[in-house]
Amino acid sequence: MTATDPSGLAQLRDALRQFAADRDWDQFHSPKNLASALAVEAAELLERFQWLTEDQSRNLAPAELTKVREEMADVLNYLVRLADKLDVDLVAAARDKIELNAIKYPVETARGSARKYGE
Amino acid sequence: MTATDPSGLAQLRDALRQFAADRDWDQFHSPKNLASALAVEAAELLERFQWLTEDQSRNLAPAELTKVREEMADVLNYLVRLADKLDVDLVAAARDKIELNAIKYPVETARGSARKYGE
Amino acid sequence: MTATDPSGLAQLRDALRQFAADRDWDQFHSPKNLASALAVEAAELLERFQWLTEDQSRNLAPAELTKVREEMADVLNYLVRLADKLDVDLVAAARDKIELNAIKYPVETARGSARKYGE
Amino acid sequence: MTATDPSGLAQLRDALRQFAADRDWDQFHSPKNLASALAVEAAELLERFQWLTEDQSRNLAPAELTKVREEMADVLNYLVRLADKLDVDLVAAARDKIELNAIKYPVETARGSARKYGE
Repeated sequence: MTATDPSGLAQLRDALRQFAADRDWDQFHSPKNLASALAVEAAELLERFQWLTEDQSRNLAPAELTKVREEMADVLNYLVRLADKLDVDLVAAARDKIELNAIKYPVETARGSARKYGE
Repeated sequence: MTATDPSGLAQLRDALRQFAADRDWDQFHSPKNLASALAVEAAELLERFQWLTEDQSRNLAPAELTKVREEMADVLNYLVRLADKLDVDLVAAARDKIELNAIKYPVETARGSARKYGE
Repeated sequence: MTATDPSGLAQLRDALRQFAADRDWDQFHSPKNLASALAVEAAELLERFQWLTEDQSRNLAPAELTKVREEMADVLNYLVRLADKLDVDLVAAARDKIELNAIKYPVETARGSARKYGE
Repeated sequence: MTATDPSGLAQLRDALRQFAADRDWDQFHSPKNLASALAVEAAELLERFQWLTEDQSRNLAPAELTKVREEMADVLNYLVRLADKLDVDLVAAARDKIELNAIKYPVETARGSARKYGE
């Protein structure tokens, strides 16, 4: 989201700003509402997978993948919009979180165990 | 972050691949499971806002913003991981979706109305 | 869900069992999948409210309330179905949780504060 | 629980009313906020299952089932609270929805297919 990133998330952010401004939708885009919309879109993405087996989810038909891709886009767009409103650098936040998780789940103890997730 | 990865997402993708490989967690990361994890993280983000007014959500205290930023990071990380598994270019998908939405919600009819969302 | 409850949740449970059996859908109804479906329906319910103000959410138009009521029904039906699969007595569980919450959030300290939710 | 409250939900509703009144929490319980809280609890329930296989989800250890039961209780409690605020009869709504679904998914065409869910 800097000058070195003219065509990535910063561009998306700008396009979403324009989109909302053109429609006078900024009034609806409080962080609270955007967080709701993001959760709703994440659930719509989950809906595409809910009755599939894990193996089926690894082998989506092209038409299904197209729909999944659109839901993923919705999630990213609301996330970028929320980050804009809260002045959060998403990629830096994600990098920081990976570092925190590396401490929280040391390789030795976490290896091959889903346990760490549960608690 | 290079000219071929202007958004920094490819770098995140690689870090997340390494993170999972180091812990032998790839076995848990079916698209179905990643979509669940993404929805769960989106809900954890929403939880930070659920009892706030919209105005309060626009004025988070620094400590609260730090937590919100971490939840946003979790959402992005699972989204990037899912995109990796499904070979989806997130930024391209998001751009395409903005174009689709521009057709779905023409400026003239959508202006200032939350209606378009409802249906 | 006992003999003293012939027309409430136990009846729903039985109707849902029959519905699934008639369609051979039991194969899809693992607790994992039902929990996903429940989360998806809860998000569809949330979607009806996401762009409303709190006041608007207290004054739904009749047509909108009808849709909200249907989404609430979907949530209850998946919850009852999951409870059936896990042999959980929902009403007893809910009563127990209210008692736990009464300890967790004593009247004196929780009074009028949304804080307790946050942490 | 009387003959006029066969499901026990009216008793839950009354207990939840008292719980909120004692803590002066009614101010936070707009339908919009309750729908968010419900979605968050449904996601916490899903979190217990997200890394499990479907078979593992059918065979929860007792300690895990206890936690799942608590999350199910949270979902029901917020659902009952929302129904109270919107004056919705949950069991009647659920029955009506089963009838609608019976029309939407006729036995002949829906038999054994997860397709009907997808669209």
